[in-house]
Amino acid sequence: MPTALTVIPIAGIGEIRTGDELAVLIADAARAQDTPLEDRDCVVVTQKVVSKAEGRIVPLPHDDLDARRQLVESESVRIVRRRADLIISETRHGFVCANAGVDLSNVADGWAALLPVEPDRSAKHVRDALRARAGVEVAVIVSDTFGRAWRRGLTDVAIGVSGIAAVVDLRETPDALGRILHVTEVAIADEIAGASELVMGKALGVPAAIVRGLDPSWFRESSYRELIRPPAEDLFR
Amino acid sequence: MPTALTVIPIAGIGEIRTGDELAVLIADAARAQDTPLEDRDCVVVTQKVVSKAEGRIVPLPHDDLDARRQLVESESVRIVRRRADLIISETRHGFVCANAGVDLSNVADGWAALLPVEPDRSAKHVRDALRARAGVEVAVIVSDTFGRAWRRGLTDVAIGVSGIAAVVDLRETPDALGRILHVTEVAIADEIAGASELVMGKALGVPAAIVRGLDPSWFRESSYRELIRPPAEDLFR
Repeated sequence: MPTALTVIPIAGIGEIRTGDELAVLIADAARAQDTPLEDRDCVVVTQKVVSKAEGRIVPLPHDDLDARRQLVESESVRIVRRRADLIISETRHGFVCANAGVDLSNVADGWAALLPVEPDRSAKHVRDALRARAGVEVAVIVSDTFGRAWRRGLTDVAIGVSGIAAVVDLRETPDALGRILHVTEVAIADEIAGASELVMGKALGVPAAIVRGLDPSWFRESSYRELIRPPAEDLFR
Repeated sequence: MPTALTVIPIAGIGEIRTGDELAVLIADAARAQDTPLEDRDCVVVTQKVVSKAEGRIVPLPHDDLDARRQLVESESVRIVRRRADLIISETRHGFVCANAGVDLSNVADGWAALLPVEPDRSAKHVRDALRARAGVEVAVIVSDTFGRAWRRGLTDVAIGVSGIAAVVDLRETPDALGRILHVTEVAIADEIAGASELVMGKALGVPAAIVRGLDPSWFRESSYRELIRPPAEDLFR
């Protein structure tokens, strides 16, 4: 039997408050449900709980569309498109997404969650703490839910990575017919984030997942910046 | 322990020729590797082998860029962007992708694979044949590898579905804090296709995967059309 991939939701983490050490909560919850973390796991944790733990939560009066617009603009370096209440903009990190990633769901009423200031550092913090507290060498991805051009529906993507490739470059790998493929860069971190979303769901209170069985060669230092298409190369900005 | 998702590559399918019954090859290969198909599995099969089985293969002289351009244009209903040899266009189905989905990798030299004429019908054909030949009630997704605006790296997405929701609408589901989320449509078929890509790889000769453990409520009739953002709603076309 070939190597299968397993995606395990981590339930029972509970509500996150500023200053909580996510690594401890994740490791304890994984152990409590009899799926303790193992070396070479990739732990995916949602932006929302990372932002809560890091205190990236700001007051935003309910239904105050003007305050919301100002907040989105202050989190943006460039407005890409605007239609009615929807703003598609580029964040400081270089992500192009709706409302600069400012998020109102699963946040207490009257508050909004902002993206982490440096999501790779957020991922590295969880990874280092899991090594120190749980004794495991894992990779960590911080995920968020983004829309796409042209296609309906949202998918989860990676906004921060530590210890795992964001993009795997298959340009020099012979294909099954022995020819060299010229350009095949696969955004595996986005695919891993999306796979995790399938076991999380928006309403389930499952803010983290374990992805087990990934190609060992993918575990390396990396950055979400590998996923940012430079504006000069981008035909749609 | 919560319900985990398992993604199992199906190896040993071999080279596909026009007229091959993919369902038989997939069911046999799954059985041969001791992971026989089960009811409620979702089988993901790549566009390339579907196109080969359906004879959607046309001669294209190696390095004849002019013939390639003409072929891409004939597979397009609208050119969205053009830069040097790269054409981003809209296909008859409504997909916006590079080169109208015309594919040269893993195809014999001098030939190109076109997208299936009706990818939902392709998915349904495999699904019906798996029911008839292997006695299992599964869902089927036909996947392809697309680029994205703004983000580097390709991901696999769904271009045809049968028996599984393309998009799950969570607009009426209370979030973990009990509030109603207003707009959360998750493109689960794309996330399932992406998860499968993680066990396939471009160079491994693994053209199909089993995704096991999906939410039972997602198994319903659907269409790739759920994933097509109507041009009038699309800010980037």
